[in-house]
Amino acid sequence: MSEKPLLEVCLSPALLHLFDTRNTIVVIIDVFRATSTIAAALHNGAQKVIPIATVEDCLSMHKRLPDCITAGERDGKVVPGLQYGNSPLEYHPEFIQGKTLALTTTNGTKLLHMVQDAAQIITGSFLNLNAVAEFLRKKNKKVLLACAAWKDRVNMEDTLFAGAVAHQLKDAFQLKCDSALMAELLYRQALSHNSLLDFMKGSSHYARLSAYGLKKDMEYCTSPNLHPVVPAYDGEALVNVATDREIS
Amino acid sequence: MSEKPLLEVCLSPALLHLFDTRNTIVVIIDVFRATSTIAAALHNGAQKVIPIATVEDCLSMHKRLPDCITAGERDGKVVPGLQYGNSPLEYHPEFIQGKTLALTTTNGTKLLHMVQDAAQIITGSFLNLNAVAEFLRKKNKKVLLACAAWKDRVNMEDTLFAGAVAHQLKDAFQLKCDSALMAELLYRQALSHNSLLDFMKGSSHYARLSAYGLKKDMEYCTSPNLHPVVPAYDGEALVNVATDREIS
Repeated sequence: MSEKPLLEVCLSPALLHLFDTRNTIVVIIDVFRATSTIAAALHNGAQKVIPIATVEDCLSMHKRLPDCITAGERDGKVVPGLQYGNSPLEYHPEFIQGKTLALTTTNGTKLLHMVQDAAQIITGSFLNLNAVAEFLRKKNKKVLLACAAWKDRVNMEDTLFAGAVAHQLKDAFQLKCDSALMAELLYRQALSHNSLLDFMKGSSHYARLSAYGLKKDMEYCTSPNLHPVVPAYDGEALVNVATDREIS
Repeated sequence: MSEKPLLEVCLSPALLHLFDTRNTIVVIIDVFRATSTIAAALHNGAQKVIPIATVEDCLSMHKRLPDCITAGERDGKVVPGLQYGNSPLEYHPEFIQGKTLALTTTNGTKLLHMVQDAAQIITGSFLNLNAVAEFLRKKNKKVLLACAAWKDRVNMEDTLFAGAVAHQLKDAFQLKCDSALMAELLYRQALSHNSLLDFMKGSSHYARLSAYGLKKDMEYCTSPNLHPVVPAYDGEALVNVATDREIS
């Protein structure tokens, strides 16, 4: 019997250099809200989501591709000049169907561009938790769950999502790294609460987004499995590779 | 009423740059085993502990001060050329009384030298948990609990100790940073187990030190309050500043 593959957790982009991402599936996690928005947009019919590093690049993309929708936030707020924000609630099917979304965010898109040499890069959020976990189980390859964090600071929501994936996969993967063990323990603790959001009420992002009037967004972003897609990065854009459309 | 001071947790030396340590008491945490050894040595009568970055510097210190005891480890093992290792069990009173210990370790001493501009630097471990917590409560100043980790990788034992301090002080300090909140939640979870060591049995350091035959050391290092000292760094050495000898 071959050894179970490793599942590791990187709690901040500032720790990414400690992990060998070769021959590894890297899952980018930015629960509030980039990877939740990506899951919602793709599940609601977006053709693809192009993650873009800067606001300027987002605007020049729009000049080249006038049909694409530009969206993004900086420090949790919509950026002047872009058409839409970073809320999964904005991308309902009637609006996003068949379209391309050019998205720039504070932490999530930055981390995605930092990862080099991975076997595959996908994005995860509670909205597509089971889809991501089942994808990883099927691939049976080394996994790094990479939290986007907040300006490199470890945050609770991304850690909890990493813990949720680790929890689902701990029978099939080796959880040796302490970050993975601690994230999984934390998630188990959260399960005994009324809701995930209730568990993270003391967290810094909860306070920040509440102050912006985004409580509804947080409720949505912590609802499991509303958008069962697997967004995979093809070098330019994220496309859904769940089930039959999966890239081998 | 003035605002409660902040209590923050830095989970790895690679994240230290994210925190402002000015006007802050920084607590260096290296439970397995540097800061446990420091607490034991000082409580058992060592005059001071000089934290030293390299094995070479440790050896040259011994040439200058032949009476000082050189000790240290690299990757958890005693270093050839040094007299003693990094086990708190080695430094019993009959041996260490009145002596100076020159100590070099993989992670703990490195982090101590990285901290700049702090109001004060002290070291913490379960062996001096209450002494450290009470010292911080009395000072009523901003606190950074800085985990030495393992070669920059977040580890469970240092995180748990940070959580233990946060748990004791959460009435008197603001716990806004998610690392502090998560460490405190994790520690609360550990409290429901038979022992701290039992809780951390899956952790990477438990596996590493068990393989070196150091289970007894780990049991000792997770026993709370056996050595109620507050080791404070005076720019050259760590000396006990607990209670009446406290430096203001």
